[in-house]
Amino acid sequence: MIKVGIVGGTGYTGVELLRILAVHPEVTVSCITSRSEAGVPVADMYPNLRGHFDLAYSEPDASVLAACDLVFFATPHGVAMRMIPGLMESGVRVVDLSADFRIKDLQVWSEWYGMPHESPEWVEKAVYGLPEVVRDEIARAQLVANPGCYPTAVQLGFLPLLEQGLVDPSRLIADAKSGASGGGRQGKIGMLHGEVGESFKAYGASGHRHLPEIRQGLSAAAGTEIGVTFVPHLVPMIRGIEATLYAEMKNPADFDRLQALFEGRYRNEPFVDVMPFGSHPETRSVRGANLCRMALHRQERSNIVIISSVIDNLVKGAAGQAIQNMNVMFGLKETLGLEAPALLP
Amino acid sequence: MIKVGIVGGTGYTGVELLRILAVHPEVTVSCITSRSEAGVPVADMYPNLRGHFDLAYSEPDASVLAACDLVFFATPHGVAMRMIPGLMESGVRVVDLSADFRIKDLQVWSEWYGMPHESPEWVEKAVYGLPEVVRDEIARAQLVANPGCYPTAVQLGFLPLLEQGLVDPSRLIADAKSGASGGGRQGKIGMLHGEVGESFKAYGASGHRHLPEIRQGLSAAAGTEIGVTFVPHLVPMIRGIEATLYAEMKNPADFDRLQALFEGRYRNEPFVDVMPFGSHPETRSVRGANLCRMALHRQERSNIVIISSVIDNLVKGAAGQAIQNMNVMFGLKETLGLEAPALLP
Amino acid sequence: MIKVGIVGGTGYTGVELLRILAVHPEVTVSCITSRSEAGVPVADMYPNLRGHFDLAYSEPDASVLAACDLVFFATPHGVAMRMIPGLMESGVRVVDLSADFRIKDLQVWSEWYGMPHESPEWVEKAVYGLPEVVRDEIARAQLVANPGCYPTAVQLGFLPLLEQGLVDPSRLIADAKSGASGGGRQGKIGMLHGEVGESFKAYGASGHRHLPEIRQGLSAAAGTEIGVTFVPHLVPMIRGIEATLYAEMKNPADFDRLQALFEGRYRNEPFVDVMPFGSHPETRSVRGANLCRMALHRQERSNIVIISSVIDNLVKGAAGQAIQNMNVMFGLKETLGLEAPALLP
Amino acid sequence: MIKVGIVGGTGYTGVELLRILAVHPEVTVSCITSRSEAGVPVADMYPNLRGHFDLAYSEPDASVLAACDLVFFATPHGVAMRMIPGLMESGVRVVDLSADFRIKDLQVWSEWYGMPHESPEWVEKAVYGLPEVVRDEIARAQLVANPGCYPTAVQLGFLPLLEQGLVDPSRLIADAKSGASGGGRQGKIGMLHGEVGESFKAYGASGHRHLPEIRQGLSAAAGTEIGVTFVPHLVPMIRGIEATLYAEMKNPADFDRLQALFEGRYRNEPFVDVMPFGSHPETRSVRGANLCRMALHRQERSNIVIISSVIDNLVKGAAGQAIQNMNVMFGLKETLGLEAPALLP
Repeated sequence: MIKVGIVGGTGYTGVELLRILAVHPEVTVSCITSRSEAGVPVADMYPNLRGHFDLAYSEPDASVLAACDLVFFATPHGVAMRMIPGLMESGVRVVDLSADFRIKDLQVWSEWYGMPHESPEWVEKAVYGLPEVVRDEIARAQLVANPGCYPTAVQLGFLPLLEQGLVDPSRLIADAKSGASGGGRQGKIGMLHGEVGESFKAYGASGHRHLPEIRQGLSAAAGTEIGVTFVPHLVPMIRGIEATLYAEMKNPADFDRLQALFEGRYRNEPFVDVMPFGSHPETRSVRGANLCRMALHRQERSNIVIISSVIDNLVKGAAGQAIQNMNVMFGLKETLGLEAPALLP
Repeated sequence: MIKVGIVGGTGYTGVELLRILAVHPEVTVSCITSRSEAGVPVADMYPNLRGHFDLAYSEPDASVLAACDLVFFATPHGVAMRMIPGLMESGVRVVDLSADFRIKDLQVWSEWYGMPHESPEWVEKAVYGLPEVVRDEIARAQLVANPGCYPTAVQLGFLPLLEQGLVDPSRLIADAKSGASGGGRQGKIGMLHGEVGESFKAYGASGHRHLPEIRQGLSAAAGTEIGVTFVPHLVPMIRGIEATLYAEMKNPADFDRLQALFEGRYRNEPFVDVMPFGSHPETRSVRGANLCRMALHRQERSNIVIISSVIDNLVKGAAGQAIQNMNVMFGLKETLGLEAPALLP
Repeated sequence: MIKVGIVGGTGYTGVELLRILAVHPEVTVSCITSRSEAGVPVADMYPNLRGHFDLAYSEPDASVLAACDLVFFATPHGVAMRMIPGLMESGVRVVDLSADFRIKDLQVWSEWYGMPHESPEWVEKAVYGLPEVVRDEIARAQLVANPGCYPTAVQLGFLPLLEQGLVDPSRLIADAKSGASGGGRQGKIGMLHGEVGESFKAYGASGHRHLPEIRQGLSAAAGTEIGVTFVPHLVPMIRGIEATLYAEMKNPADFDRLQALFEGRYRNEPFVDVMPFGSHPETRSVRGANLCRMALHRQERSNIVIISSVIDNLVKGAAGQAIQNMNVMFGLKETLGLEAPALLP
Repeated sequence: MIKVGIVGGTGYTGVELLRILAVHPEVTVSCITSRSEAGVPVADMYPNLRGHFDLAYSEPDASVLAACDLVFFATPHGVAMRMIPGLMESGVRVVDLSADFRIKDLQVWSEWYGMPHESPEWVEKAVYGLPEVVRDEIARAQLVANPGCYPTAVQLGFLPLLEQGLVDPSRLIADAKSGASGGGRQGKIGMLHGEVGESFKAYGASGHRHLPEIRQGLSAAAGTEIGVTFVPHLVPMIRGIEATLYAEMKNPADFDRLQALFEGRYRNEPFVDVMPFGSHPETRSVRGANLCRMALHRQERSNIVIISSVIDNLVKGAAGQAIQNMNVMFGLKETLGLEAPALLP
């Protein structure tokens, strides 16, 4: 059994880790920390966990965490970078669900997150945890930076095109939409039901923190600096991300082999599902499941390839992918604990 | 492995059976029938099942069904009563999720369902499948009538009070609310998103089919004919039922022992959770889970006991309870395949 | 033109007052106060008001308010009772949308609102502003206490029965459901979209502040102390209240004249609509409209009368009723500014 | 008073026409037709109209329609083209809310709508009713083809850029999202609450009927054949469209004057609101209002201009724009009956 600790477990990512780990056959959760809720049973805060966990939140304690095999950080940005160097020394392995170790360029990170980075050496050593790209490095990593939700949906959709050099890398557009759980579980007026319900809007259209992360990943895949416009939107629902991706084919004749290319690229990936050409993936088809489902489209004589890619932002976009990474790191079957179908309807 | 067949699997109850059975370790689904969709892979209709089932819908075939160990009927009312007598002869066991065998009084059934009953002998033999009441009979039954969604939430809430004779049995009120999936998956204008969304209403307030079913169950528990007013409402959400129940205590002094009574009554029930006195169960705390969660309330000096009881109408109110019944019938661990926590948020 | 001031206009009640007053032909809004947002144009906070109001929020200023003909208080409980005595001296008339002057029994008020009352003399003079009950007193009042949202829906539904003494006044049950805007516009975690969406629950089931207000109004109508059980619920929608009311008829023969009684009681009321017997009012049928719509039901041989009553909590349950009261107070046509049909769908 | 008839008034567009016309001071609705609902009072079907209209649906009758000053067609595609030629002879003026007269190229129309056009001569004479483009022609027109919902939001957003030739006209992208009321009020399984709620998806990504309409309008504005990729999406809400538009600036230096350009272009337009640069219009800010609200964005050093444009699909995208056109046609104040602010929250 893998002994797991969770730092910062009061948010939606924390409860989602617990929900999935509750049925993971090789994991035991030994501690979950929260300064503000120390002493409160997790099942009091999240009644869906009643009967599944006796655990209560505790103050973070370095020695307790050091005794774990793996620690998940589900903390606000800026916390992990302070705690992780110490933990690393004790040999514990970590999957960090925050953004602290995702961006390799420290200056870019500081610009977007508004603070200097306090653990540059571990930024360098951290592996960006998209298993569909760097599975082997994840297996060996001590510190995995779990990708952001939007970046997961956007990168998986564009990857096959950029890896093969089929599209103009300077003209990528990613129009993405997310349910409200992506905004976290803090008392922000803008995220009230009265504000989010029955309405739709773009946000962060002039620049969002996931833009540099997307740019970094896609540039690596393309082998060149790419240009991408990324606009996120808020959907009046709780879970789910859909990204509609637009790219310009260098050679329209290549349209004929796109579907085969995508299917081939992801044939052995248990958590990427390429639907038939012209399908329309629904976010509900992945609700609660660790899955990215996508489909390709072309309009008439156009040379624009359109990809619609969906994930559950809390699963393949956060907690599920973190557990997938854990499975890879510990040599377990990659799908362990992640087999249940999505909740539909 | 138990060989399972599903008759009428295109509705929400059908897909929910498949969703749960996909991870049930002791079941293999050998056929799923639909006249209208024969030949269509279930995963084309319900993309959340992609990768989980290769099965396609097929025309109902008596010999194929007869070769199953268990057949679930997820058909509209009036279908099972015609097909079941033949199946029974072949020795197959059946859990019928429709209303055909729930009501023992044939005249009452005909009044509410608008047709004569065509299989009176099996009405008599059928066991009303509320495991929390008649577990042993279910274990031995060949035909189990799976309870309706509202009746499950309402009966489990009132049962301890009526079994102990603590309340006036003539003055029960059940104000119940359901998500839209309870209305099924047919193209009815009244169930469009544009009609159901952002609105709330009572329906069937002058009389609903679940009223006689509730009356039958509660009368049995009370040992006397009870009087109940039952008003269902439509909530702009997909899954979930909440029933707020009102009963008049015969002796207000008994309030002091109510919580202990409820906890004792359900202590060994894996799928009933009595929360602390004064709690407010949320439907999302049971979303996707086979669970009835409830709590008790009292207002000031009042002698009315209030119970709030929640279930997922598609799980403990339909497919989950059907699988719980199957587990009981086949001597499996009752919780097999039903262990995952609810999806929250 | 009536010169109107609004104190505390940043919440949902404040913007709703402005939305309606924007098209009221006899009103000009001369000030709207907010300490926290002083200087911010209302249209920056509420973009639906762009092009309708040039007004910015201002610090509350006694002399500015004193120069108004009417001041609406849309403040948290406890604010109006401190400011109103001074304003009253200047001769301004006030409609208070908070609960400060609704309850005549000061001790009851203090128990439920958790503070001593600081303006007892004005509690006595204030008129409880339900125009369907005390229109003439409202017309003469200097201070009107605008009713709560639930109390409006519940009282209008029960009134005809209690005024005529047709039901057992000790056994009233009001099962009420409200959209999330009733919870106000503060950053409370429990009111996030991620918490409220796709879920339903009771709250305040052991006692809610609107209970004493309902009890006071219904006791007055009945001419005797009534007994009522009131349980509110939270619906995953923004606007709307539905109350399902249960009462026991003293004489079942009276059922035959109930519909005529209700229709007669409200025949001349422009803002109460009695639908045909057996109808199911939807909250969306009053969305944005100053209207209480209701219908009566009876189940089989039962002697329980069921009333389903709906309002928009922000309109007939708050801002609309406040403007109706203003129209009455100033001798205007009662429907002025309140004529538009509800927004459906 | 203008005597108005409505053909095909049972859908969401029909009830929305009635909702707005109920408070229009210069209009009287003399008939509303529906073959299927003939005899049914409109207020029975749409209870929000109780007390506003005594009207019942009637069989379409040529002589009754011929006696109107204006007839709105709110019919499925293919109906108006058969009825309108006859009506035109009688001198009645018509605003057709269907797509029958929107596309000038008959072959294109036939391809997308799947039938030959039966009234080619009136296609030529019809004026495409976007008042912000051809107000004067609308004023003189006998037949106005009311624009589609998506085309309204998309065209108004792109127009200033194309009219001034500032962007590459061959690389336009319109990623649009609509609430479910855009799908109409027919009993389609795909539009059930259980299917639409809590999910998001693209649809028609390989080609949607509004694509040729958008292409026609934008090509006219650009003075050259444009190239546009248009992908619609379904949002789990009832009303509202948001279109995020992407275009490539020919000269990035022009970014500095974009905001002034848009503000100038729409300064005198009562129903277009250009928000400050970098704003995020919400669909709820136009709910129920005849308004297109938009804002501009730029990301870092990018030469892509981003426009977010929102409308209520049933108002500025259908019934409201039709009434705006009527006001223009009859020389009324263009805003008559259309002044109320949006319903927010």
